[in-house]
Amino acid sequence: MRLAAPLERLVDEFAKLPGIGPKTAQRLALHVMRVSQQEAAGLAEAITRAKTQIIHCGICGYLTDQDPCSLCNDTERDDSLLCLVEESQDVIAIDRTGFNGKFFVLNNNFQLMNGLDLRKIDFPKILEVVEKRGVQEIIVATNPTIDGEVVARYIAETTRAKGIKVSKLAYGLPVGGDIEYIDEITLRRSMDGRQEI
Amino acid sequence: MRLAAPLERLVDEFAKLPGIGPKTAQRLALHVMRVSQQEAAGLAEAITRAKTQIIHCGICGYLTDQDPCSLCNDTERDDSLLCLVEESQDVIAIDRTGFNGKFFVLNNNFQLMNGLDLRKIDFPKILEVVEKRGVQEIIVATNPTIDGEVVARYIAETTRAKGIKVSKLAYGLPVGGDIEYIDEITLRRSMDGRQEI
Repeated sequence: MRLAAPLERLVDEFAKLPGIGPKTAQRLALHVMRVSQQEAAGLAEAITRAKTQIIHCGICGYLTDQDPCSLCNDTERDDSLLCLVEESQDVIAIDRTGFNGKFFVLNNNFQLMNGLDLRKIDFPKILEVVEKRGVQEIIVATNPTIDGEVVARYIAETTRAKGIKVSKLAYGLPVGGDIEYIDEITLRRSMDGRQEI
Repeated sequence: MRLAAPLERLVDEFAKLPGIGPKTAQRLALHVMRVSQQEAAGLAEAITRAKTQIIHCGICGYLTDQDPCSLCNDTERDDSLLCLVEESQDVIAIDRTGFNGKFFVLNNNFQLMNGLDLRKIDFPKILEVVEKRGVQEIIVATNPTIDGEVVARYIAETTRAKGIKVSKLAYGLPVGGDIEYIDEITLRRSMDGRQEI
């Protein structure tokens, strides 16, 4: 036996979302059946509205509802620092650290295994931003994975040739971690990157 | 810094769903930004359609897009057995066991702590179904919690007075479980309910 068709379809749609298995999808669909008509409409409308109103910033690639985005337009931010990240959510995370430079979102989920395509990186655009803003340092904040590392090195080599300083985030101990449980590679990196007290 | 307003609203809407925390909500919203316009519309539409087309069956309370539902209309099912469950998803679970009787969905999340309201149980309707169909046994399949137990006993007392046999699901060991790790109450119940081999 299956659920009624429209309900089954809603379960299937929820199950397409990342990290949502069939059981959770069913629970979500049945939750939607319980809430008010208005609440359900609110969710449906938010999806449609976000999908139609949100675009990528023409300068930095950040998800925004105005072009250029509020980050690019922010005159309080330091134009001489440019942080390169993979996805828009990384911008939020790095901004939270107090970083006050500008961003450039690569908008690529780089995967070595699936034929990591470095040609997808829009270097002309990065270099245009660098020149226009007089960027003095590019901080490459790709994910601390092999894929992210390859991308970081490639970007570094390409932009360093233009005479720009390029740095990347430090590897090391996560704050609050326990040395006993930290993997060998991270620990070795934190030894290599040790700092004088 | 926050995400652009329409995106932030979508995150908030996702976070209202049960078991979806703010991090997961953000991941879901950003996933919606990545998928095609068509896929996003599919989700929004499925929500709206399910919400408008799905109703409670006028006889048994099951979530359905036709009234009476396919279960009530199913002539292959045994009319003499009526299984009472709390929610529509319980119907699916019990049907999967091979149960071939009919169902009655209470559609109430009974919570003793929040003033378990037994008056919400629609006894006239249950008794109407019982009489019309010539039900000979009611199987009360409320959740194995204290709340479910109270509801089960209440239903049993009320309907038994009408001369109908009332049973409930057996407590005992979960198949594949490990006696060492089974809680004391369940184990005691399985001792009480021991069966001759």
